[in-house]
Amino acid sequence: MSKLPDASGKLPSEFELIARLSKGIRLSRRTILGIGDDCAIVSRPRGDTLFTIDSMVENVHFDPRWGTPEQLGARALEVNLSDIAAMGGRPTACVVNLAVRDGISARTLDGIYAGLRNAAREASTDIVGGNITRARELSITIALLGEIRRGVMRRDAARPGDQIFVTGTLGDAALGWRILAGKLKPRGDARRDRGARKYLVERFLSPQARLFAGERLAALRPAPAAIDVSDGLMQDLGHILERSGVGAEIEASRIPVSPAYRAVMGNSLVHALTGGEDYELIFCARRGHSEAELSRRLRVAVRRIGTIVRGKRLKMIGASTPTIGGWDQLRSRG
Amino acid sequence: MSKLPDASGKLPSEFELIARLSKGIRLSRRTILGIGDDCAIVSRPRGDTLFTIDSMVENVHFDPRWGTPEQLGARALEVNLSDIAAMGGRPTACVVNLAVRDGISARTLDGIYAGLRNAAREASTDIVGGNITRARELSITIALLGEIRRGVMRRDAARPGDQIFVTGTLGDAALGWRILAGKLKPRGDARRDRGARKYLVERFLSPQARLFAGERLAALRPAPAAIDVSDGLMQDLGHILERSGVGAEIEASRIPVSPAYRAVMGNSLVHALTGGEDYELIFCARRGHSEAELSRRLRVAVRRIGTIVRGKRLKMIGASTPTIGGWDQLRSRG
Repeated sequence: MSKLPDASGKLPSEFELIARLSKGIRLSRRTILGIGDDCAIVSRPRGDTLFTIDSMVENVHFDPRWGTPEQLGARALEVNLSDIAAMGGRPTACVVNLAVRDGISARTLDGIYAGLRNAAREASTDIVGGNITRARELSITIALLGEIRRGVMRRDAARPGDQIFVTGTLGDAALGWRILAGKLKPRGDARRDRGARKYLVERFLSPQARLFAGERLAALRPAPAAIDVSDGLMQDLGHILERSGVGAEIEASRIPVSPAYRAVMGNSLVHALTGGEDYELIFCARRGHSEAELSRRLRVAVRRIGTIVRGKRLKMIGASTPTIGGWDQLRSRG
Repeated sequence: MSKLPDASGKLPSEFELIARLSKGIRLSRRTILGIGDDCAIVSRPRGDTLFTIDSMVENVHFDPRWGTPEQLGARALEVNLSDIAAMGGRPTACVVNLAVRDGISARTLDGIYAGLRNAAREASTDIVGGNITRARELSITIALLGEIRRGVMRRDAARPGDQIFVTGTLGDAALGWRILAGKLKPRGDARRDRGARKYLVERFLSPQARLFAGERLAALRPAPAAIDVSDGLMQDLGHILERSGVGAEIEASRIPVSPAYRAVMGNSLVHALTGGEDYELIFCARRGHSEAELSRRLRVAVRRIGTIVRGKRLKMIGASTPTIGGWDQLRSRG
């Protein structure tokens, strides 16, 4: 439904949208029919299909002034790709719904589309369909398909005794967001702070879905339980625990944080534990995998942070309240 | 990304969303994993796959006061299903993104979800994923998958000599929308007007995707070119002409309108020609099909309205300007 009864006339027509979104686009042979018909046609996949939808809304998830339109477009796709990564799939095709408000220029629109195309190309994902609508705020909603290749990771697969790992570092994006929102001003050495600030902001604005790591992990036997860090370690791990009917013990001292995080937060782990938007992977694998082996295999630093246990509690070990920071405010599950 | 940094606390959590959206839901055996993980898993389809996305935004496409939440939810899915119908496919699975503003009650949300579930059940379509976000206005964005069974209808398949047909009647939904928006008050016999008003409003609020007709049409050899009427006959037929590189001659006297339309509009065809949201099918088939045969086969009244010709013009035959109404304002293509 692209009808806009009260359209101001500033919004590009469906034809223009097609031209703008598909500008210079190159599609894989999987795509039989791309943008421009009622539906796209994608060829029969090799196996079972992953299907997901996610949305990024102005002033809820982002402020358009924080980064470039290209970053915004790329980020909208990356956070979706991250859901495919968390299942261990390989993304194949996506459709994009853009809601545009007054005041968004054609140049901004083209920047968003360019960012989307760049991120899609890097992930070997075809943009096969698009829709545009007027709205009172800018939003980008993307639905994505992926292929299951050698295995699939589900939230409900964690078993007592599994070791809990995370890729990369946690809490960076939450700090980046706080810096951008003016809620956190790094203190201390000015030069070092600038570097940290830049790193943290970049981690928020330009996340990278862990597609390679996810696909490698899904090939393990049995496939680990996994989820991506969108809402924060505690909450996202909580989803695994809930779906798997298990509990967990986390060793606070093992939570991986970046030098930039440490420069800003010292020993407080509050944002590493509760900050979202990092799009790292949390996974629970049977015993027998070392950090070194997994880091090599996934081509990203992997840290073991705890163990899946019987019960329903998520227990933090070896952290005093001051170390964790706002621990009292954290929801304790179970 | 379900993170809502400034959430007011009124929005249901992801867990609640899952419970609400999937309440009483029954999924087909095609769905391996439904709502509740990073992605849904759907089993490998029989053949090539249709993929589409569409969005309905408050105050752009609808006013939530016009109908029930159930109607709103059902309508959001029907307009998406209509894109599958226009390609001749059979819908299989969808994912739903709901943007919710302050002031939308849990009861309204449940009504929307109930409407979505009802429409999905009637179309044998699984709701396999959902996402919810805060926003400044209510919107429902749905991405939908469909199977191609015996054939597929594309916009680019029209050839000179093809006959142009439409299902059902045109312009009803546009009048329904105008009545709801207070832009049109039926005149004349009060009782007859009430009946017409009710019919037209219903056509806007509760469209029915022509899935059965679409699938039957796609089995014709060669498969017709087709599109659904979302933006109005002139514009939607224009898409077929543009993609197929052809022109058309339409016989004004053959445009099918309902008795309710005639009661309100008399002989003016303006809304039948330019009004959208009817979700009927326009299709272009090789010569040799009668209206009676097609009506029987598709189980809906089918009217032949014109012919595909060489060139790029969309020509209206046998209509004076007063008959068509605002014809001067219509965009003439080519």
